[in-house]
Amino acid sequence: MPQDVFPRSEYESRVERTKERLHERDLDAIVVSDPANMNYLAGYDGWSFYVHQAVVVTRDYPEPVWVGRDMDRNGARATTWLAEENMRAYSDDHVHSPYDLHPMDFLADVLEDLEVDGGRIGLEMDASYFTAKSYTRLQSQLPNAEFVDADLLVNWLRIHKSDREIAYMEEAARISEEAMLAGLDAIEAGVPEYEAAAAIYDRLVRGTDEYGGDYPAIVPLMPSGDHTGTPHLTWTDREFEEGDPVLIELSGCRHRYHSPLARTTFVGDPPDAVQETADIVVEGIEAALDVVEPGVTCERVEREWRETIAKYGVEKEDRIGYSMGLGYPPDWGEHTASIRPGDETVMEEGMTFHMIPGLWEDEFGVELSETFRVTSTGAETLADFPRRLFTA
Amino acid sequence: MPQDVFPRSEYESRVERTKERLHERDLDAIVVSDPANMNYLAGYDGWSFYVHQAVVVTRDYPEPVWVGRDMDRNGARATTWLAEENMRAYSDDHVHSPYDLHPMDFLADVLEDLEVDGGRIGLEMDASYFTAKSYTRLQSQLPNAEFVDADLLVNWLRIHKSDREIAYMEEAARISEEAMLAGLDAIEAGVPEYEAAAAIYDRLVRGTDEYGGDYPAIVPLMPSGDHTGTPHLTWTDREFEEGDPVLIELSGCRHRYHSPLARTTFVGDPPDAVQETADIVVEGIEAALDVVEPGVTCERVEREWRETIAKYGVEKEDRIGYSMGLGYPPDWGEHTASIRPGDETVMEEGMTFHMIPGLWEDEFGVELSETFRVTSTGAETLADFPRRLFTA
Repeated sequence: MPQDVFPRSEYESRVERTKERLHERDLDAIVVSDPANMNYLAGYDGWSFYVHQAVVVTRDYPEPVWVGRDMDRNGARATTWLAEENMRAYSDDHVHSPYDLHPMDFLADVLEDLEVDGGRIGLEMDASYFTAKSYTRLQSQLPNAEFVDADLLVNWLRIHKSDREIAYMEEAARISEEAMLAGLDAIEAGVPEYEAAAAIYDRLVRGTDEYGGDYPAIVPLMPSGDHTGTPHLTWTDREFEEGDPVLIELSGCRHRYHSPLARTTFVGDPPDAVQETADIVVEGIEAALDVVEPGVTCERVEREWRETIAKYGVEKEDRIGYSMGLGYPPDWGEHTASIRPGDETVMEEGMTFHMIPGLWEDEFGVELSETFRVTSTGAETLADFPRRLFTA
Repeated sequence: MPQDVFPRSEYESRVERTKERLHERDLDAIVVSDPANMNYLAGYDGWSFYVHQAVVVTRDYPEPVWVGRDMDRNGARATTWLAEENMRAYSDDHVHSPYDLHPMDFLADVLEDLEVDGGRIGLEMDASYFTAKSYTRLQSQLPNAEFVDADLLVNWLRIHKSDREIAYMEEAARISEEAMLAGLDAIEAGVPEYEAAAAIYDRLVRGTDEYGGDYPAIVPLMPSGDHTGTPHLTWTDREFEEGDPVLIELSGCRHRYHSPLARTTFVGDPPDAVQETADIVVEGIEAALDVVEPGVTCERVEREWRETIAKYGVEKEDRIGYSMGLGYPPDWGEHTASIRPGDETVMEEGMTFHMIPGLWEDEFGVELSETFRVTSTGAETLADFPRRLFTA
């Protein structure tokens, strides 16, 4: 095996658990399209998800089978633990093709070769890169297959982290702390937003003294001023001004594992309304973290947050967190458990969540987040970073 | 209009051309899911494409309608030119929902409200982020609609660049030059790969003395050593060693417009095989650029490359370039014209391509690329950077 991100036995155990789920759901195979799931099962790591690719797991065939573009086969050789015959590559004329060829035609042939083309095949129906066209093309290529929505089947396995996965997330947390410091240091009146973003990015990739950082699945988000009323805007050429709130959400990344962290800073003296909102967010997040322990439900944790801020007359209707870890753009979230009303997922030791209860008003926003793991007795935040409103 | 990336008239002209295509194809509406197309028509810019969102254009309703998540509505207010009533947002319980709610349920309501729910509706069937589930959900919500594959309808409009679009790509090219210099400067034996990546990223975002850079749609790719036999691996903790070839592919970005650039460097004295391969790539790319002019087909340009390298007994079966410009992760390519056999797209003034004819052998790879625009008489490369093998 070319890399040793995880021991082979850990990958094999993941595949075994996937096969158990296939058995439980009476599926003959699953086509895994989410790059994070492909990495989880096969180790594959490359920026090639702008073309169609997959990892196929069947109940009967021992190893997963990687399916991708011919020029990425060497990438599969370099990063996966799979045998040579289990890396199947399609020719370049399938890519954005003017020839009425589609990568799913090739994938259909692989499924035939694996003798599941007449079986029940699970598909990740709502995964970002599994397009409508991929679905209809598979349907037309394999008229005897029965396709079943198996979205999140592998994602739900990912919710339980091994010690090694936690260790990578802790390494990522060290990077998050350094990058947050770099961002807070860079922000001041008169500095363009992009300079702060550059300082953060430099640190995210340069990492710590011992190791570097991967690219994060989401770029550093840092809306400022008027833009803090919404969480997903990125930096511009604008210069920070006295009176700007600035939201910084970022994540270090190690071997594709993340540990996101958000803080808010204020350029100049914060008005009372901003300071009070920040105090409420801090109190709310601390109250919510306090009730985390094995056996508690996600909705119970959200309720603690909501009831805490309600004392100050504040209401917030969004979810306040989600399970996360391994990820590729566009998201580091796992799309399984969310910390919100109605989510009855029971927290267990070894799960990891990003709790991000921002309050985005129309005039300004404050957000502050922690990535935590569930221990045998409570929540342990991965980053160690002061939990307050900063000023610049 | 909150931002002035383009004058409102330019957006209106894009919408007008979209409506003409709807008319030609007898479509009542199109649901635009590709974030680059959403930006192109509405100006919307945010890292929110990890949830479902769209811009809807109908033949009869004057403006596009943005559909997204409630917390991103302020992002739409900040970046689009649309009237308030044309920003429609769904509540957070639609996101990765445990409640059997899906954003497409909301989108279906919008289509009903726009009175096209019984009409012919174009969908971007193979766009990243338009998932199989989005498709089946729309089908079940709107049983009277006729859905038609309208993939690339807007992308094909994007192939012709306005002067202002070209100007942003030229600004991006200045950043690409600076970032390539920073990467070449950073690479030497004993330096970890991530340090070079950090230097590149810092410069990509810090930009030039006059303006900063956006995040690129693809991270800097820089496989080195054994990994140069494949193009899409990213940096690791490994230190560069004497004898390493290193491929650097990167792009500056301005207002989401890119100008990619690739070069190869060699740590130490390059062996003859590497130098010769680089010389062949340079000769091939220059021959191919020489035949570019309005009226020439994409396949003709590829043939020039192929025949040039064939003189040295080298064959390459991949496409060697593609139309590009505006983009979001995972890709800056437009997925329309490719420079490859069988692509009969006729080059016209104002089109922009990334020509990237790498040669990836099993032992090592060499790549070298240029972004060029088609002028009234030929090809003009956007970056001005020495076209040769570098050494570190």
